Amino acid sequence: MSSTSTQDLRVGVVGAGQMGADHIRRITRTISGAAVSAIVEPDPGRAEAAVAAAPGARPFASIHDALAADALDAVIIATPGPFHEPVLVPALEAGLPILCEKPLTPDSASALRIVELEQKLDRPHIQLGFMRRFDDEYRALRELIAGGDAGELLMLRGVHRNPSVPENYTQSMLITDSVVHEFDVMPWLAGSPVRSVEVKYPRRNGLAPERLREPILVLIELENGVLVDVEMNVSVQFGYQVGTEAVLESGVARIGEPSGLQRWSNAAFSIAEHTTYTTRFARAYDAQVQAWVDAVRDGSLVAGPDAWDGYLVALACEAGVKALETTGPVAVESAARPDFYV
Amino acid sequence: MSSTSTQDLRVGVVGAGQMGADHIRRITRTISGAAVSAIVEPDPGRAEAAVAAAPGARPFASIHDALAADALDAVIIATPGPFHEPVLVPALEAGLPILCEKPLTPDSASALRIVELEQKLDRPHIQLGFMRRFDDEYRALRELIAGGDAGELLMLRGVHRNPSVPENYTQSMLITDSVVHEFDVMPWLAGSPVRSVEVKYPRRNGLAPERLREPILVLIELENGVLVDVEMNVSVQFGYQVGTEAVLESGVARIGEPSGLQRWSNAAFSIAEHTTYTTRFARAYDAQVQAWVDAVRDGSLVAGPDAWDGYLVALACEAGVKALETTGPVAVESAARPDFYV
Amino acid sequence: MSSTSTQDLRVGVVGAGQMGADHIRRITRTISGAAVSAIVEPDPGRAEAAVAAAPGARPFASIHDALAADALDAVIIATPGPFHEPVLVPALEAGLPILCEKPLTPDSASALRIVELEQKLDRPHIQLGFMRRFDDEYRALRELIAGGDAGELLMLRGVHRNPSVPENYTQSMLITDSVVHEFDVMPWLAGSPVRSVEVKYPRRNGLAPERLREPILVLIELENGVLVDVEMNVSVQFGYQVGTEAVLESGVARIGEPSGLQRWSNAAFSIAEHTTYTTRFARAYDAQVQAWVDAVRDGSLVAGPDAWDGYLVALACEAGVKALETTGPVAVESAARPDFYV
Amino acid sequence: MSSTSTQDLRVGVVGAGQMGADHIRRITRTISGAAVSAIVEPDPGRAEAAVAAAPGARPFASIHDALAADALDAVIIATPGPFHEPVLVPALEAGLPILCEKPLTPDSASALRIVELEQKLDRPHIQLGFMRRFDDEYRALRELIAGGDAGELLMLRGVHRNPSVPENYTQSMLITDSVVHEFDVMPWLAGSPVRSVEVKYPRRNGLAPERLREPILVLIELENGVLVDVEMNVSVQFGYQVGTEAVLESGVARIGEPSGLQRWSNAAFSIAEHTTYTTRFARAYDAQVQAWVDAVRDGSLVAGPDAWDGYLVALACEAGVKALETTGPVAVESAARPDFYV
Repeated sequence: MSSTSTQDLRVGVVGAGQMGADHIRRITRTISGAAVSAIVEPDPGRAEAAVAAAPGARPFASIHDALAADALDAVIIATPGPFHEPVLVPALEAGLPILCEKPLTPDSASALRIVELEQKLDRPHIQLGFMRRFDDEYRALRELIAGGDAGELLMLRGVHRNPSVPENYTQSMLITDSVVHEFDVMPWLAGSPVRSVEVKYPRRNGLAPERLREPILVLIELENGVLVDVEMNVSVQFGYQVGTEAVLESGVARIGEPSGLQRWSNAAFSIAEHTTYTTRFARAYDAQVQAWVDAVRDGSLVAGPDAWDGYLVALACEAGVKALETTGPVAVESAARPDFYV
Repeated sequence: MSSTSTQDLRVGVVGAGQMGADHIRRITRTISGAAVSAIVEPDPGRAEAAVAAAPGARPFASIHDALAADALDAVIIATPGPFHEPVLVPALEAGLPILCEKPLTPDSASALRIVELEQKLDRPHIQLGFMRRFDDEYRALRELIAGGDAGELLMLRGVHRNPSVPENYTQSMLITDSVVHEFDVMPWLAGSPVRSVEVKYPRRNGLAPERLREPILVLIELENGVLVDVEMNVSVQFGYQVGTEAVLESGVARIGEPSGLQRWSNAAFSIAEHTTYTTRFARAYDAQVQAWVDAVRDGSLVAGPDAWDGYLVALACEAGVKALETTGPVAVESAARPDFYV
Repeated sequence: MSSTSTQDLRVGVVGAGQMGADHIRRITRTISGAAVSAIVEPDPGRAEAAVAAAPGARPFASIHDALAADALDAVIIATPGPFHEPVLVPALEAGLPILCEKPLTPDSASALRIVELEQKLDRPHIQLGFMRRFDDEYRALRELIAGGDAGELLMLRGVHRNPSVPENYTQSMLITDSVVHEFDVMPWLAGSPVRSVEVKYPRRNGLAPERLREPILVLIELENGVLVDVEMNVSVQFGYQVGTEAVLESGVARIGEPSGLQRWSNAAFSIAEHTTYTTRFARAYDAQVQAWVDAVRDGSLVAGPDAWDGYLVALACEAGVKALETTGPVAVESAARPDFYV
Repeated sequence: MSSTSTQDLRVGVVGAGQMGADHIRRITRTISGAAVSAIVEPDPGRAEAAVAAAPGARPFASIHDALAADALDAVIIATPGPFHEPVLVPALEAGLPILCEKPLTPDSASALRIVELEQKLDRPHIQLGFMRRFDDEYRALRELIAGGDAGELLMLRGVHRNPSVPENYTQSMLITDSVVHEFDVMPWLAGSPVRSVEVKYPRRNGLAPERLREPILVLIELENGVLVDVEMNVSVQFGYQVGTEAVLESGVARIGEPSGLQRWSNAAFSIAEHTTYTTRFARAYDAQVQAWVDAVRDGSLVAGPDAWDGYLVALACEAGVKALETTGPVAVESAARPDFYV
């Protein structure tokens, strides 16, 4: 087997935790046209394991070292949110295309700094890892809404249910770690940004960790009047579900229903339900990264949510966190979208 | 064919409009153990048609005439709500068992008068026509909730969609004619009465009549903390849907999904959806009336929602109507339930 | 409560075993326009229990006694098949309308005797208890086929699965007790009688009683060329299923799928499956008896499969039993349908 | 973007018609670890288009030229079946791993020549393109059967429905082009080879081309007694469906049901159905080629059906074609499986 004549995109992955390791595996074993060339991970054990899984990848202690070594053409940021900005800044300054896991940064002020910095480049370089936009069903739903056959969109009704959450999951993470996806994808479906966020408290789930008061019902008004409600529910035990129902003037559409092998046994018909996002959105993750790699290779650089979307989501999250302790809607007010992001 | 040796319950039907005519047909042709013996209907044309459909029934101009003629053992009231009280009062005074179509009366003050009058009898005599309680799926859902296998109930999420509404349907009827069913059935499912009602306005359906601002999203808090949300949507064109999702601590259950013949044609798999409540709840209506007839014949008199439930629903409707023009929740405060209604 | 002025049909029920008792309960408590007036049951215990469940019914030791006492206007025969003829004959001679549980009689020769006797009356008096014809889904499927929107019918594919069978169930009963329903309903759906029957043996179910070699696959050719295949499977443990798929020129339709409350728990979505025919066809039984009562009361006498259908089914069963031990198709040859049965 | 340090598998694609072009696109744009290095296509127009779609690929007029130029590490054969052997032979002689589209060769005699030639190598080098084995649902079904929780497998019931077929599709292609997939996948699901094949003729579809007498029902006995029936139906107009139901001793499982976005409109609930195999099996094709590329890169060479499977399928097809004109089952007799293929 001789060396190939085509040139794969050299991707540096920053952060080799669960999400980073998953991206490394994906690029190495699933995605066409890219290879992991650099892994930035301060933890030696993780770094070693990650390099072992990616033939040809070199380990680096920092993004600066990797950039200095000219070891990458593009970067995936898979560290926790608070560590995004210190990677985004040098990567932007180096003019690299970036796929940044959500959130862009932990708050709207830092997000605004990033979009300001990015505007010094010739065009957007940051794509955000809101993978739902690459899920086949979400795409079909958006197409149906945009098609207009069933009239205008009136409501979006979502559920997001997790079997359980890790020990470090806090009350505000209901918003910043979970509802955050809805703040991206619901406006994308509806074609309109968030105007306000409100939180209602149903009866508390006794199976939730003591520190959590959940489920919550999140009511989101969009600028175009569409009302979104999201049931956010993270201790449901029975499975992992993300579903959306779109209510249009003369029709309704629904995604996220069970599918696959159907079984009859023990006096019941059944279909397996997901128990984790990694299976529910496996193909969306693949499609997202492939789309990004293709966009980088063809020069369009961004093929999904951009940094401005990340800023808007950060604003919505801030309103959402405030709404956790507020009665009534909390308004979201954003700066005007620059022409740079169109 | 000689006269039967068993004795059918002699039912008087008051009001021979669409609903009354339907009850007459049901008792005459579907239900066991009862026959229509009297029809009270001032409109001569309707009265004549009704009598023709019920062999052995006699027409009367008023409930008083029918009572004076000793023409009935029990009464079904199927007139519009504002005409219920003038029938309920003499029927109660005559000690007759009553199946009264919803609502009990148009407001909580008159409902309270009825429950006070009823308490002069030895036990409740009024059953209210909230037929959803007799739908197989609602009953299965209630049983599942009460069974407790999936933990406590946390939320109930409802949709009520009509293809369209008649010309006399007003904004407040969204509450008093449609959501009224949820005010009965959701507390029945959850085992807890309504604490407050709030209305949110999504984007307006452009296919709705000009006088209506709908759909609406109704948020109902129950005393036990369960949060109910109901999408009330009466110009959806595509069909008639009533569905409920119960969110429990470790499971979810859903009713109201399409069923029946499955078809493949024109690049799609499809199942017919209902377009009217008369098919969606046909069996519930039958089961309701059969249960009432059986209860009257065995002396228990009431086999469903009672007059006190009707009073509570009236209160919830009043709060709901107020909520149509209020920001935030409107509280529901009821008198204490008398021991008489247990 | 005074005596009713309407006249109920006085029904005599012959045989108060499980099926007879069920009919007695149905007529007494569910069906409109009929009452059980006579119960013919030689077993004293069964007779006593049956009479107790039917106010006004009188017990008789034989059909002859009941006829002599002028105790009935119409008769339901719910004894085992071999005892049908001795009841059918005197009931026909008395000119009574008859609802006879399947089979008409145990073989085609006796069935032919019955249809010959019946033709001495002015019109058919016997309706056969093939209740599937009264199931909503079967009726919808027949209507769809007859409508012709999807072209001609080409194939019918059936499954009939039982959790288990009683100890007295023999190999030939796979045909005479179970497939017998398909011999009635498939020609009814297709509008064409049976031309031949063939049996194929899949791998044997190790959970079947030793005496049974099953499941079997039954291939039924109809006169119009439609090919029917039926999986007959009586030790499936997991539930009771009866399903049919109609393959038309440009579409496919399917009935018998799970419906009702949907549940998520333990990493699965599920719907309860039937475990017995009594729930699967509960409404079909009710509808069947109501239709028969209505037909008797309005003078049409028969509202479903008639005695000639019973004769054809007997012929098909005889071919089917022979096919259990034959390689290749066994032809069915019937007498010509008399004009009497149209 | 500099040259990658990893080495992609250099794949030569023989045949650049629809299937070959699809593989070229797949390897170039979807699959990880491989690149198209050579395209063998005699038609100049096709060759040019194919090379344009695969950066770095070189065109060759014959497999011999490509081999002589050392232009490939592995080969995908996507020519029509009759042209497979002339490519298989030199590729095997060159010791190249091969992914060969189905069928291996057009008949069992030539297939046997290939398996004999292949046995001169150290291990199997040929993988056959029966992509269903890589479909998620088929894999789940096989796992469920093998798991044994529901007892032994008794029957497999399949449907294969096409909206229509091209003009060159002949009666025998019902077997050799369509049922051929079942001859591979059903034994794979059941773990047992074909013993006999029988064809039954339902009523003919009037929408079929005049030259075709279809649908057909194919009955396949496997050596372990499992009975397979397959409805093969190629003029159904309404969509493309491939479904399988596995009947086990105490359970049933089904694959191939509609999934994805659910829609309510025009009085119906619906889900889009496939209309072509390219969408139905899109992911199976991707998974198949990725698995093969991975197997070649890790030295296992074959990750799916092998040449012996291809020989068995050829035998079954020969029996099936004979069965089109035979009454009763046609036996399949194969040579003994050499240890080489385990």
